[in-house]
Amino acid sequence: MRHLILGGARSGKSRFAEQCAIQTALPVCYVATATAGDREMAERIARHQAERPSGWRTIEEPRELAAVLLHEAVPNSCLLVDCLTLWLANLFEAGTDIPAARDELAHLLPQLPGEVLLVSNEVGLGIVPDNALARLFRDEAGRLNQALAAACDRVTFVAAGLPLTLKDTSVAAPLSPDP
Amino acid sequence: MRHLILGGARSGKSRFAEQCAIQTALPVCYVATATAGDREMAERIARHQAERPSGWRTIEEPRELAAVLLHEAVPNSCLLVDCLTLWLANLFEAGTDIPAARDELAHLLPQLPGEVLLVSNEVGLGIVPDNALARLFRDEAGRLNQALAAACDRVTFVAAGLPLTLKDTSVAAPLSPDP
Amino acid sequence: MRHLILGGARSGKSRFAEQCAIQTALPVCYVATATAGDREMAERIARHQAERPSGWRTIEEPRELAAVLLHEAVPNSCLLVDCLTLWLANLFEAGTDIPAARDELAHLLPQLPGEVLLVSNEVGLGIVPDNALARLFRDEAGRLNQALAAACDRVTFVAAGLPLTLKDTSVAAPLSPDP
Repeated sequence: MRHLILGGARSGKSRFAEQCAIQTALPVCYVATATAGDREMAERIARHQAERPSGWRTIEEPRELAAVLLHEAVPNSCLLVDCLTLWLANLFEAGTDIPAARDELAHLLPQLPGEVLLVSNEVGLGIVPDNALARLFRDEAGRLNQALAAACDRVTFVAAGLPLTLKDTSVAAPLSPDP
Repeated sequence: MRHLILGGARSGKSRFAEQCAIQTALPVCYVATATAGDREMAERIARHQAERPSGWRTIEEPRELAAVLLHEAVPNSCLLVDCLTLWLANLFEAGTDIPAARDELAHLLPQLPGEVLLVSNEVGLGIVPDNALARLFRDEAGRLNQALAAACDRVTFVAAGLPLTLKDTSVAAPLSPDP
Repeated sequence: MRHLILGGARSGKSRFAEQCAIQTALPVCYVATATAGDREMAERIARHQAERPSGWRTIEEPRELAAVLLHEAVPNSCLLVDCLTLWLANLFEAGTDIPAARDELAHLLPQLPGEVLLVSNEVGLGIVPDNALARLFRDEAGRLNQALAAACDRVTFVAAGLPLTLKDTSVAAPLSPDP
């Protein structure tokens, strides 16, 4: 199953995703897209790592997410990618073709075996940013979330640590009555 | 029926509204409040237009929305206004009396025949903006959304392309059991 | 019961909280954390006050919230605190130990008698702010909302004046079927 977990800054989305991973009772591979570029980010990464179960394998990959998913997604395993918005920011910085990278990921997702949990930020609910690059990033982050949501079986929005289901195709349809 | 569709930037709210319009199976009149003031906006408008069904009639009206609605809303037709937040920004720029324009629109809505779909942005969920004008705009955008939501039969919040119902008075109340 | 009411700027969260307070039919004590530091805030406070029922008692307390709650929460009364985000901003300004103040409040809440309504802002759903202090405040506001949500029986998100239930432990669990 592919499960997209959306939320704002400090909404509890990472912790919710980690709880989902623990509940699978499968071996977990944690894919971190963050790179410790400055002190603020290094502290954030260290704090997140300390809070994760020690048995989890960690892969750090800022950009080549599709290659990592293709290689690491195996039956009876759980992949947790945290987070997609940082991955997008890394692609922006590297000058990558964003629509191509988004399409590659969205096409790949439904084909992956095992459980895949994706964490992403919602960034489009504030006032229009002053600078053009921030507006462009906001647009691409929104497009990425739409593409991922369409490719996932479940989508959950997290606010104040509480989950709200936006999509769940894993719920069985009610049985038709006898004719 | 009057249906307000709220969402962030690139949340898929416009596409959702367009799907709602198609599902009415009625002739659609699209009311665009955007004006091609700069290249970024001109490109955005052109992209949106290319994605809409070719049979739709389009009216461009940056400010006189109440007059357009009063004239164009007819039985067995669907009006789609995209978007109200841009209309508000146009009123700000023109120095219009915002509370008066908001009240006029909110009072008009329940009286209109046919289907009316309104798209609006949620902009109040980020950090408090630095500049006073942005704070004022954010306040007025919130007040407008509240007034429109109160005047509509249905309100849907769209995130990552997925709809979440906030209000639906068109759903029939469950029948009382026999006494 | 403890009820956390979350929402963006001008989302109608304060009015919703006031309606909840009125519905308790209990004597209401309104705890305002705002201080009239500038003209914009003074006007906002005056407008809010004029809209509240005249029978309510008002206490203004920018920082010592735990002490006020401990003293004022009594059985068969309703406390309405508006808002927690401003309280957090006041603590920031005063250089208070934020995690300690947050923990004190979160531990206190479940022990209070009577009805307690808390209003708080969601500020983490916009683009990452440019300045480091705004990022820090956003992080602490998110942590505070998570801690409060965990300590409350009900959590409601308000958008465009419409409530969306995120948590409600006051709803009775469905009865198990007969074996």
